[in-house]
Amino acid sequence: MPVGPAHLPTLPALDGVRWGTAATGMRYQNRDDLALLELPADTIAAACFTQNHYRAAPILIAQHHLQTTPPRYLLINAGTANACTGEPGLQAATDSCAALAKLTALSPAAILPFSTGVIGEPLDTAALTAALPAAIESLSTAPAAWERAARAIMTTDTRPKLATATCSLAGHRAQINGIAKGAGMLCPNMATMLAFVVTDARLSAAALDALCRQATEKSFNRISVDGDTSTNDAVLLAATGRANTPSIDALDSPAGRALATATTALFQDLAQQLVRDAEGATRLVTLDVTGGATSADCLQVARTLSTSPLVKTALYAGDPNWGRLVAAIGRAGIPGLDPARVKLAVGDTPIFANGQPAPHYNETQGRALFAPAELRIQIDLGMGKHREQFWTCDLSPDYVRINADYRS
Amino acid sequence: MPVGPAHLPTLPALDGVRWGTAATGMRYQNRDDLALLELPADTIAAACFTQNHYRAAPILIAQHHLQTTPPRYLLINAGTANACTGEPGLQAATDSCAALAKLTALSPAAILPFSTGVIGEPLDTAALTAALPAAIESLSTAPAAWERAARAIMTTDTRPKLATATCSLAGHRAQINGIAKGAGMLCPNMATMLAFVVTDARLSAAALDALCRQATEKSFNRISVDGDTSTNDAVLLAATGRANTPSIDALDSPAGRALATATTALFQDLAQQLVRDAEGATRLVTLDVTGGATSADCLQVARTLSTSPLVKTALYAGDPNWGRLVAAIGRAGIPGLDPARVKLAVGDTPIFANGQPAPHYNETQGRALFAPAELRIQIDLGMGKHREQFWTCDLSPDYVRINADYRS
Repeated sequence: MPVGPAHLPTLPALDGVRWGTAATGMRYQNRDDLALLELPADTIAAACFTQNHYRAAPILIAQHHLQTTPPRYLLINAGTANACTGEPGLQAATDSCAALAKLTALSPAAILPFSTGVIGEPLDTAALTAALPAAIESLSTAPAAWERAARAIMTTDTRPKLATATCSLAGHRAQINGIAKGAGMLCPNMATMLAFVVTDARLSAAALDALCRQATEKSFNRISVDGDTSTNDAVLLAATGRANTPSIDALDSPAGRALATATTALFQDLAQQLVRDAEGATRLVTLDVTGGATSADCLQVARTLSTSPLVKTALYAGDPNWGRLVAAIGRAGIPGLDPARVKLAVGDTPIFANGQPAPHYNETQGRALFAPAELRIQIDLGMGKHREQFWTCDLSPDYVRINADYRS
Repeated sequence: MPVGPAHLPTLPALDGVRWGTAATGMRYQNRDDLALLELPADTIAAACFTQNHYRAAPILIAQHHLQTTPPRYLLINAGTANACTGEPGLQAATDSCAALAKLTALSPAAILPFSTGVIGEPLDTAALTAALPAAIESLSTAPAAWERAARAIMTTDTRPKLATATCSLAGHRAQINGIAKGAGMLCPNMATMLAFVVTDARLSAAALDALCRQATEKSFNRISVDGDTSTNDAVLLAATGRANTPSIDALDSPAGRALATATTALFQDLAQQLVRDAEGATRLVTLDVTGGATSADCLQVARTLSTSPLVKTALYAGDPNWGRLVAAIGRAGIPGLDPARVKLAVGDTPIFANGQPAPHYNETQGRALFAPAELRIQIDLGMGKHREQFWTCDLSPDYVRINADYRS
């Protein structure tokens, strides 16, 4: 029961960018679980990978390949993460790339593998390889191909995540299309999530890398479902350079800023779609933490609230149990926090200030404030001028049920 | 549905130590919710309090009183935490102590107030004061009085927590009795928990203080239900000095070590009772983290596992999804962690080593290993010689239900 209506924009074609999908039968029946993204020659790409010490085999191979040569294909499978699989796992990821390289007459290094699903189980390379011809056959620039790909990479997601944007760069139009997946193991520093975003803008490799990092930091690193970080997280941003836009060498130019604004907004759109579709989620909560002595303090408070089971179960119940929010702020480990200066509001209605409930606040009002499926909680730490925005969801019995049942 | 059979030892009388209970009707119907502990003159006491920035009014008053004079009464109410209640909350705690001081002809500073329950609601001082005469009337050294007190301080607990121990100090017998409460908001650095332990051993104030800190560190600071730290946590250790034991001035003497061992074991017993009765818990999990470069690293791994919703939901399901354990170890932020050196075992059966499933491990075996209601997970970080033990529980749909319903 995701939060809010499904968000299925039609993604316009991007010149030379094609998606294909196929079914390997590895884990899922009667659905595609393999997605293949073809990028035109001269595309450049940047990526952010999981910060987990255990990086899945495909992540290790993708990092290595990305350093070697620009990618021409992304090869993504859902259902098996190929993580914690040791040397055989690395071999399986390598073999998958080699099989596709043979079919496309490319170097294996031009192929980036991505996997999502259960950790610790071997990747069925034979099944994956057998599905490659069908995936290649189905390659298409059509809008429907983006949606098919977004569906093929789903695991516990209940709906596909797609976003598109345009921006004007020195009077010329650039397009950005993206898809993502992820519903659990979502945590501040990346999530069990994959996001693939392609633009036709022209920019330098350094600018693209900076853009990927900056937009990820303000989007996928600002969400939390359960505080867990996957072994397979990856965000990839590719630029074909096929739009008739000026080349961007630095993000602090007018065109750079315009592209960064549009890209960050699109990343945030995808990130919020992940939270809306989080396992068992019934509410989307925006946390606005202001008045921080540092940005890190603001984020620490947001992360503490967004991983507190007591806060999240109260949010699920629509229970105005603001005491749990305040207690979580108090245990967030913010040096020098003065309990008397912290202010809490839902929407714009003050709830707590001066160490006690705000004047005129009452329980009936609280119930109304905490009732909506989408709400914004404001925390003013009263210490400085820093602020951060963060998105999270509630914790429902369905989250437990989904995660207790995922493999069984 | 607590884990394991109820543990209701009969606590022998401690000379001069009396418990009384009464019902205030503040929140609960048809049960006692007020407990009064009377300590004989010349008792000394030490305490550890919550590390939350928001310390509840009774905590602030108790800390202040404890610095002023040795306690003669502990006054504990359940149902209302008197936390985040500002100046009126401090006044309510002060008034409660004053009312008891009047009835007992003592200084208010000789009374330590403790509260547990919902945050942010005012304490009904009139109801509390009205119940004091009945509590005083019921004061008793009888074993049953300890159990009545343990029941009176319960909130979401499903059963009372009691423990007793004796130890021989230079050939003389000392007794230790303790009660505790707590079922949620339990986190590594203390929990929504109260524990009151009394011994008749004789020791210096400095040794008592060191003993309280040391035993708390190895027990209540080594458990986690949900990672949340309450505003009201307190562990109090009192020593009446009425046993015919030698006076202990330092814990590194033979008698000091004997008392420390017995006291720490009793604290651990109470701490494990809290985890066994954790909200919705169906399993008690002992985490043995070895091979750490530092103790802090071992504890960080234990805390990460014990607060990971994905790990805890898999434990609930009895699902041998060890990939989630490994992924949580990988994101615990241990500097220099080498994924290839980490070893994971359940009981003494190896599950994961060298970055992949252990040889001969299979899913059927895994299901059997994760099935018991009590299990021990061993994590060898392969980095050094430090080790720590930690206790946690699983995360069930009942946890969410209990915490979503707690106030509603």
